[in-house]
Parts: sequence; structure tokens; C-alpha cells
Amino acid sequence: MELKDHIRIIDGFPKEGISFKDVTTLIQDKDAYKYAVDKIGEYLKDKKVDLIVGPEARGFLFGAPVAYSVGAGFIPVRKKGKLPCETVAVTYELEYGEDVLEMHKDAIKKGQRVAIVDDLLATGGTINSVAKLVETLGGEVVAACFVVELTELNGKDKLGEYDIMSLVKYDV
Amino acid sequence: MELKDHIRIIDGFPKEGISFKDVTTLIQDKDAYKYAVDKIGEYLKDKKVDLIVGPEARGFLFGAPVAYSVGAGFIPVRKKGKLPCETVAVTYELEYGEDVLEMHKDAIKKGQRVAIVDDLLATGGTINSVAKLVETLGGEVVAACFVVELTELNGKDKLGEYDIMSLVKYDV
Repeated sequence: MELKDHIRIIDGFPKEGISFKDVTTLIQDKDAYKYAVDKIGEYLKDKKVDLIVGPEARGFLFGAPVAYSVGAGFIPVRKKGKLPCETVAVTYELEYGEDVLEMHKDAIKKGQRVAIVDDLLATGGTINSVAKLVETLGGEVVAACFVVELTELNGKDKLGEYDIMSLVKYDV
Repeated sequence: MELKDHIRIIDGFPKEGISFKDVTTLIQDKDAYKYAVDKIGEYLKDKKVDLIVGPEARGFLFGAPVAYSVGAGFIPVRKKGKLPCETVAVTYELEYGEDVLEMHKDAIKKGQRVAIVDDLLATGGTINSVAKLVETLGGEVVAACFVVELTELNGKDKLGEYDIMSLVKYDV
């Protein structure tokens, strides 16, 4: 299975100069979708993962089925104000301005083994913030798994302390 | 498995008078999460489903693993401007104002059999809009499955032409 054949490249989205990697074409193909989820599941197999954590919304598309397939619970990380109970929050910088991510305070118990799953590793800013939320609650980040990695943005360096894997890599 | 034991009730979210059904406590429990996904999968077993369609963001939490478990592709329905390619759109009314949902135009081929999956059936407005998007593209809605149904809001009546199932029902 060549996953890149199922990823659609859209130049100029969401703005000029960006070559967007569209994974909707991958997930609408049942075989490619299953393959991607299973590959991440295989990587996590011996890591004794209790929970998968994924940021909204595209992180849910892969994190939720990975949680199901490896027999873990799933913890959603959401934008400010979306989660109904008491949360921990982290503010992270965007190219212009900043954004806030939240996780329920009781989502993770001290010592639980957590894998982060998202569609895309770019600069690593979002995932670094998600990892900090997990650690704030006493969870251990045992891996972070991605479908697509944009290697030019060096996200892997920013996440140097973590075990990182990605299914496909693009250098632009 | 009594799924209601895993759903947290939060009075006053997102505003006074609402008794919010929080499914994050269900999905963070691996057994309850697997049970819910499998129950929906069992319901769909003989319906020859090609695709699962789910609206962002909570619809992804159940729709994506159901797609994986039944061997279907998954089609995300998103808020305006989030999908990178050409879309079909539907405008639906909210209590105050309106909102727009979009689906990629090439997401569904004519004649494909589609099940809609979401966390919550309330008034049925969102799901009715999603069903119209599916039908606009020539898909056939063979079922709509929910984790929680708020029976007092009569969503089932609004969706009378469809095959509806929900895992748990609340009358307030």
C-alpha cells in the first residue's frame, strides 16, 4: 500500500504558498484508511498504551480508530470552551497570534501511558502543547504518531524528547 | 454494559437550562468505548455500508472507529471553509442564526450506501442536513446511528424517512 497515492495535494490552501496534504481522500478509501490505522496500531503494540490523545478535529479521524484498534481509551484535546467539565489549558503560538487547547482535568490518571495521534506533524507546536497537557496530568507520553510529516519544518527536532513516528514524509 | 453509567451529566452547559450529556467519560473508558462502537457496528452489519459519514467534531469520535470496525471509508462533514477541495454545502438553522456544513463533492459516488454516525440525536436538524448532503451526491442513507438520543426533542420524527438507532435514550 502506497499511502501517498491516497493523499491529495492542494496548492494554495489554506493560503498561497502552502501545499496542503489532504487526507480526506485517504480516509474515504476503506483499505487505505484501515492500513494507516493498523500501521500506527502495530507501532504501538508493545508500548502498553492506556490512552490515545488526539487534538481536534483531524486528530480524531486517526486517533479514535487507533484507540479502538489497540484497545485504549481516547482523550480529545479541544479548542477553548468546547469541553464541558473542568480543564487544563495550554496556550500556544500560531504564525499570527495564539490559540488555546484544553483537556479535561480528570482525563488522565497519574502514571497512565499515553500515545498522541494526529494527522500531521508540521512545526511540532501543537503536539508539544498536547504533550505538556498530558504531563501536567501525570501521564507519560510513550509515543507520538502521525500520518503525514513535513520534514522541512523540523517538528521532530522540537519533539526531540519523544518517540516519534510518521507514516509518510514530504520535504515540502 | 450499562452505557449510561459512563455518560456524565453536566447541568448548565453550554448554557443554563441544558442538561449536557458528556460522552468524553465514555470514550476514555476503553471497554465502554469499544462496546459502543461495536454495538453500532453490529447494527450496520447486514446493511452493506460503503461509507460512514460523521459531522465534526464529536461525530468523528464515533464515526471514525465505526468505519474502521465495519471496513468502510469515512467522510467528514465540516464547518464552512475547513475542507480544502470543492464542496457541497447546506445551511441549517440554529436556535439563533444559522450555520453551514460542507462535504467534499467527490466524497460519495452515486449509489454508495452510507450510514451517518453522530454522538447525539437532539432535534435532528444537523443530521437532516447531513442526509441531504449525502443525497445531493447520489448516496443512499441506509441508517443513522447515535450514541445518545434526547427523546423529548423528537428528532426521530424529523428523520422519519430514515432508519434510526440510538444506544441510550434520555427524556430530558
